Amino acid sequence: MSPISSHINLGKRKLHKSAKEYFDGIRKGDVSTLGQAITVLESKSQEHRSTALELLDMCLPFAGNSKRIGITGVPGVGKSTFIEAFGSFLVEQGHKPAVLAVDPSSSITKGSILGDKTRMMSLSKSEQAFIRPSPSMGSLGGVSRATRETIILCEAAGFDIILVETVGVGQSETEVHSMVDFFLLLMLAGAGDELQGIKRGIMEMADLIVINKADGDNQEASKRAKREYKNALHLFPAHEYGWIPDVSLCSSIESKGIEKVWKIITSYFELLNDKNIFDQSRSDQLSAWFHSSINQQLKELISDHPKYEKLINELLNKIQTEELSPSSAAHTLVHQLIKE
Amino acid sequence: MSPISSHINLGKRKLHKSAKEYFDGIRKGDVSTLGQAITVLESKSQEHRSTALELLDMCLPFAGNSKRIGITGVPGVGKSTFIEAFGSFLVEQGHKPAVLAVDPSSSITKGSILGDKTRMMSLSKSEQAFIRPSPSMGSLGGVSRATRETIILCEAAGFDIILVETVGVGQSETEVHSMVDFFLLLMLAGAGDELQGIKRGIMEMADLIVINKADGDNQEASKRAKREYKNALHLFPAHEYGWIPDVSLCSSIESKGIEKVWKIITSYFELLNDKNIFDQSRSDQLSAWFHSSINQQLKELISDHPKYEKLINELLNKIQTEELSPSSAAHTLVHQLIKE
Repeated sequence: MSPISSHINLGKRKLHKSAKEYFDGIRKGDVSTLGQAITVLESKSQEHRSTALELLDMCLPFAGNSKRIGITGVPGVGKSTFIEAFGSFLVEQGHKPAVLAVDPSSSITKGSILGDKTRMMSLSKSEQAFIRPSPSMGSLGGVSRATRETIILCEAAGFDIILVETVGVGQSETEVHSMVDFFLLLMLAGAGDELQGIKRGIMEMADLIVINKADGDNQEASKRAKREYKNALHLFPAHEYGWIPDVSLCSSIESKGIEKVWKIITSYFELLNDKNIFDQSRSDQLSAWFHSSINQQLKELISDHPKYEKLINELLNKIQTEELSPSSAAHTLVHQLIKE
Repeated sequence: MSPISSHINLGKRKLHKSAKEYFDGIRKGDVSTLGQAITVLESKSQEHRSTALELLDMCLPFAGNSKRIGITGVPGVGKSTFIEAFGSFLVEQGHKPAVLAVDPSSSITKGSILGDKTRMMSLSKSEQAFIRPSPSMGSLGGVSRATRETIILCEAAGFDIILVETVGVGQSETEVHSMVDFFLLLMLAGAGDELQGIKRGIMEMADLIVINKADGDNQEASKRAKREYKNALHLFPAHEYGWIPDVSLCSSIESKGIEKVWKIITSYFELLNDKNIFDQSRSDQLSAWFHSSINQQLKELISDHPKYEKLINELLNKIQTEELSPSSAAHTLVHQLIKE
């Protein structure tokens, strides 16, 4: 049974394991328990939430031993075939990749929800790989919270490469950028229409641009695009660790260029280790998670209390009609919320 | 007496005007009252804060009638000479520019604190211009809050172009980007060392790149840089409103290229008006302000209560030693803070 179908069946069952039981299953590498535990993470019920927090505290000391890689690109760029080819390559190399999606419209989510079994066919069958679609519920904040937590559980379960997929058009990339070590942008040759969908700022976040579908009639255009992007990246501000973002060609269908991509990624991690910045980077990820989590939990608390939601709507109205400045409105809200 | 020196003297005086008195002075265009009112905005005392909020509510309906322009660039790029030349040009055109600085290390702040009267000499003497250094106190969040509020007061006082200066190396640019209509990046020719200091992501935020010091021996290199950046910007994702970020040459010392910069900026505002997005953009700025203000006020409340600060430090310690996951730590904090 593939991880995806085990997850889908699970939704209908009752969840009643204790944090310790989930923990034991996860540490044994049991993907079925892992899938159930992630569903608990994603749940909004108070009972599930307290189990989830207990479980996270247990897993944290066993987490962190992975390479966390963000993969983004607009729909149509070939994300699912790339992840299929890349994930299968990693499995062949003896790795255990976990693939997580952040946006509801990501390729793996679409694939699983629609039951489109042609997507990531071989990867989803591999026992060394774990594929988890994004939660369809909730706000972006909630989704990214669940993704951070899911990374910890996957790592505690022994997965050593975490691929986090986003669609490159929303607000999720900045959040994802703060939870991964390496950020890969998938693009197509010809800097025209296909760029329209990408949000500004994402190109400069990329540690590597991979030009996908560099095959058939597309080869010449892809080589030209590679040169152009290389030139452009030289004009970009330098990476904080001295890393120079690279551009690489790839044909996911022909499985060409995949090894090169992996080589570039590993050389990045070698740089981080040489400079002793890997630990610092992970510590920064924990702090970012803490701050993001505070904001998210405040938002959830507010939306759980109808009186606060009503107040916020009233305040937003008064801001737009210029009766209240946003500073005054925020002052009113905060003093209603906080214990003095 | 220049606005800068009036501000510096003011720090020592008592502030005891009512919101209404400040409001009346501001609406008369009295820059001395405006300077005093901004000092009240920047103050952390509860009494000043409530006067500030009252004043903001009064000014808001009279604000908004300006072009808000962010100007960023690393130290050495010539920000103060550019703003001097640009601001003087605007005054000649019949405009009333206000210049605000966000970062303590910005050129106008340095100039005023060190009493370096050669900086923005003619602009600071003009009665049509207002120059306000950034508050030296406080966190970035606090500074950017004060900047948003200062914009409102300056607009209510009749200033029709607000230039917000940042140094392009910190976190302030994203905040500033959310409070201005147009974002201008100052650079130098030769994409080498001088780019090192700029934070990634800023180039893609720019609506216009101005290559400064395009004079003397630097002219050829500047023209080449302009071509290169133009090519690179073509590879960038398109602007949400269909605006194609431009690259322009400028010599602030020789006052060359300044008019061209202004022409580009006005054509951007024409585009916004043609597409009816100016109002939407201002409404977005108000919402961004509200959310930023909630976060900022929560932070201030927490730092005002020693028990919360102690708790946060304990939680951060436990996160770094992996005793607590950031989600659990955030849960503990939020439930201590909020009225249930």
